[in-house]
Amino acid sequence: MSVPLARRAAAELAGTATLVAVVVGSGIMAARLSPSDTGLELLENSLATAAGLAVVIVVAGPVSGAHLNPVVSLADWALGRRSASGLPGRELAAYLPAQVAGAIAGAMLANVMFGLPAVATSARDRSGGGLWLGEAVATAGLVLVVFGLARSGRSRLAPAVVGAYIGAAYWWTSSTSFANPAVTVGRAFTDSFAGIAPGSVPAFVAAQLAGGLVGAVAVVVFYPAGRGAETSSPAEGDRLAVVPADRMAEDGVSGG
Amino acid sequence: MSVPLARRAAAELAGTATLVAVVVGSGIMAARLSPSDTGLELLENSLATAAGLAVVIVVAGPVSGAHLNPVVSLADWALGRRSASGLPGRELAAYLPAQVAGAIAGAMLANVMFGLPAVATSARDRSGGGLWLGEAVATAGLVLVVFGLARSGRSRLAPAVVGAYIGAAYWWTSSTSFANPAVTVGRAFTDSFAGIAPGSVPAFVAAQLAGGLVGAVAVVVFYPAGRGAETSSPAEGDRLAVVPADRMAEDGVSGG
Amino acid sequence: MSVPLARRAAAELAGTATLVAVVVGSGIMAARLSPSDTGLELLENSLATAAGLAVVIVVAGPVSGAHLNPVVSLADWALGRRSASGLPGRELAAYLPAQVAGAIAGAMLANVMFGLPAVATSARDRSGGGLWLGEAVATAGLVLVVFGLARSGRSRLAPAVVGAYIGAAYWWTSSTSFANPAVTVGRAFTDSFAGIAPGSVPAFVAAQLAGGLVGAVAVVVFYPAGRGAETSSPAEGDRLAVVPADRMAEDGVSGG
Amino acid sequence: MSVPLARRAAAELAGTATLVAVVVGSGIMAARLSPSDTGLELLENSLATAAGLAVVIVVAGPVSGAHLNPVVSLADWALGRRSASGLPGRELAAYLPAQVAGAIAGAMLANVMFGLPAVATSARDRSGGGLWLGEAVATAGLVLVVFGLARSGRSRLAPAVVGAYIGAAYWWTSSTSFANPAVTVGRAFTDSFAGIAPGSVPAFVAAQLAGGLVGAVAVVVFYPAGRGAETSSPAEGDRLAVVPADRMAEDGVSGG
Repeated sequence: MSVPLARRAAAELAGTATLVAVVVGSGIMAARLSPSDTGLELLENSLATAAGLAVVIVVAGPVSGAHLNPVVSLADWALGRRSASGLPGRELAAYLPAQVAGAIAGAMLANVMFGLPAVATSARDRSGGGLWLGEAVATAGLVLVVFGLARSGRSRLAPAVVGAYIGAAYWWTSSTSFANPAVTVGRAFTDSFAGIAPGSVPAFVAAQLAGGLVGAVAVVVFYPAGRGAETSSPAEGDRLAVVPADRMAEDGVSGG
Repeated sequence: MSVPLARRAAAELAGTATLVAVVVGSGIMAARLSPSDTGLELLENSLATAAGLAVVIVVAGPVSGAHLNPVVSLADWALGRRSASGLPGRELAAYLPAQVAGAIAGAMLANVMFGLPAVATSARDRSGGGLWLGEAVATAGLVLVVFGLARSGRSRLAPAVVGAYIGAAYWWTSSTSFANPAVTVGRAFTDSFAGIAPGSVPAFVAAQLAGGLVGAVAVVVFYPAGRGAETSSPAEGDRLAVVPADRMAEDGVSGG
Repeated sequence: MSVPLARRAAAELAGTATLVAVVVGSGIMAARLSPSDTGLELLENSLATAAGLAVVIVVAGPVSGAHLNPVVSLADWALGRRSASGLPGRELAAYLPAQVAGAIAGAMLANVMFGLPAVATSARDRSGGGLWLGEAVATAGLVLVVFGLARSGRSRLAPAVVGAYIGAAYWWTSSTSFANPAVTVGRAFTDSFAGIAPGSVPAFVAAQLAGGLVGAVAVVVFYPAGRGAETSSPAEGDRLAVVPADRMAEDGVSGG
Repeated sequence: MSVPLARRAAAELAGTATLVAVVVGSGIMAARLSPSDTGLELLENSLATAAGLAVVIVVAGPVSGAHLNPVVSLADWALGRRSASGLPGRELAAYLPAQVAGAIAGAMLANVMFGLPAVATSARDRSGGGLWLGEAVATAGLVLVVFGLARSGRSRLAPAVVGAYIGAAYWWTSSTSFANPAVTVGRAFTDSFAGIAPGSVPAFVAAQLAGGLVGAVAVVVFYPAGRGAETSSPAEGDRLAVVPADRMAEDGVSGG
């Protein structure tokens, strides 16, 4: 039943690439077609992202668990360490670079599709206390959503719920909710609507890591290990995982 | 199986805070980015709220039942009194202040994320017979939706259905459907798009309570107790409750 | 298990009233807030209608089957006559007037909520061959959707699918898809965005009835009776019917 | 249990006609009502298409498998050849012309509904390396989505997932994601928002076929045959196929 690590890493790379292509590509399209209202641009960008993200999770879920995000992989590793049910360290070491490489590739793909130079550097400064708070809040919520679903045996809802979460967080967090270090790095490689200046990346990533920690604590508080955790079931093929499918079938994600 | 009351109250507080942060935060973002069309602002605000509310119910549901609304808690208490299946009075006394405190905290969080003073007073007057009728209609419908789902064993649909209900009610009720006394109080603490002047709060809350009463009567008429009520099932982990998960597993919400 | 006819008729009345209040109310709100772009108004109106319609079907489904539409009730009667599984004539005689009365009440409610005279007459002419063709196409599709779901045992998907169908048909049919004689009559009672001049009503209704007939033929062609029909199941409480719930539990909707 | 080929071909024709009527019709409506913002037009067009496509798959699924796309039929034939579980060559020969004829009929229907000449020729040039890359990417993703769902036993999610995929791909691919040779031909028959000049069709179709090939390879890599494939189940009536329902019940779509 186990999916080979190479294939899982490839799915993380391809999935994250598609996610960033969705974010960057729809941003370029929106900015070109709706130049007179930034809110309308963000509406178009956020709807495309919410729907596209859900689809990527549907497709990558059974292969790699559809982490697509270093914070999710790190939280899975950390929360599952005690019970040996989380992502092992050596798999974490394969997931993280695959996510970052995929994110950069996705930005390049979007650039080329829209006739821009494949590699560019964003000039868009994104910094300030309000934005960093926004990133921390957005990432904390994301971790709580993902592991709350897993620990209550509802990971098959993850595509719709995570898509809705990010789509809403584009609007209610001040930073438009990057909430993903790999995607943040990838978005530095495009000089378009969704870009972020390289100089703004480190603080965003730091805020995301801090938020991820807060989110992991919230998981432990609200969904203590062992209560209603994801377990194997006859309808396995029907389940959408955000942690690797093969491990989920064995022992759930209820570590911590 | 029972979730401790303290954790449930914490979930009500955190859930209502997130809900108000979504409503207020997306309102600020919309007003800043789409200044030339109020309808577009409301569209952005309502879509973010519908999606965000659904996610909050998904996450808080298994912990506290995701009431997030004093009218829902009161209706649960009232409709379940006779059969002793509703929220007990002492738990109601914990839920209500948690919801109000959370709502205020959520408005403050949104204010700070967007660089506004943490505590403010809304200057936006919202009053008039048409608006009060709108609030009563919106709240009556909400109660019928929530308890109609519970009494027909479909509470796991609550996130999507309640999200869709509120998203639509932003548009078809004249008051944009606050439908929640705690959220109404919280929205008085921001001087932005989603705010409401403190002087307009009492009449809104009164209309909501009146509407909640009408809704409870409609529940009794259309979904008499004991018919198709929520009951325990093997797929418990899969169920999203709008009443506390532990009680639901024992005896359903079919009181009244 | 059978729901009394009086309660079912009341649910049809209240459900159709809510549906028309959603259509008319969101049209008024959209026209007031987005006066500079008719497309944006229709977008707001159609999104609110799609979501609101889905919720109304969720709530009214287990009570009356959530027909909310004379064409659906007539098709249920006609398609189920031979096998005695459709709506009996005497129940049809209760459903139709309840739907029309509810539609008028819903328009009045919306008018009052938004500070307009309770009863008004629309001045909006809607006529022409293209529009009538649009109504026929829209209604044929609606009948095929509703009974195709019922005959393949998927009526619990009706809320989402019918909501999505009508939301899309606002755009791709030239008439914005009224597709409902009761709703058409109700919309003559408001002088606002969603109104229709009384003189335009008869041709719209005729086109809808013709389309309903085409749709019923399509049902018989693509979903012949007895194949995969809706039948009773242990998860009855979970099923959303568009035909009365009690009959569905007995013998399905597979007549014709 | 087997659905006659003639009825399945009729469903492919009617389904593809409806899909193109949705795309073209909503494009005309959007361009007429929102003339001042092309992005808003595309938003209206893409939302209507996503919702309408999902509904068409729901309705046509149990009859023909709801391919509605020559690339999907070709991929089903190719991926299922070795195990004799794919679409047989003689059925492929019925599906393809039905899809193309339906697409042309759908464009004509939309033209007539909106008062345009039934048959027209689009003057809208769509060409260039970026657009062709966009079409290849969009089609590759579509094939991976459709067969990834089938091979993991989740085809009943196809309506929502494929609708979301295409709705997002309108925005993040530079070509607005035609991703369907039959629909591309049909859209040459309208001189409106969604049209494509006949001279631009061949390169678009070539890019789609190339993308389809890439997608089929991705299916084999990420979802190797036999792992979690669609199989018969008691809830057959509940399953939405994108391959013919009768074959699915017999041996799944796990060929390749």
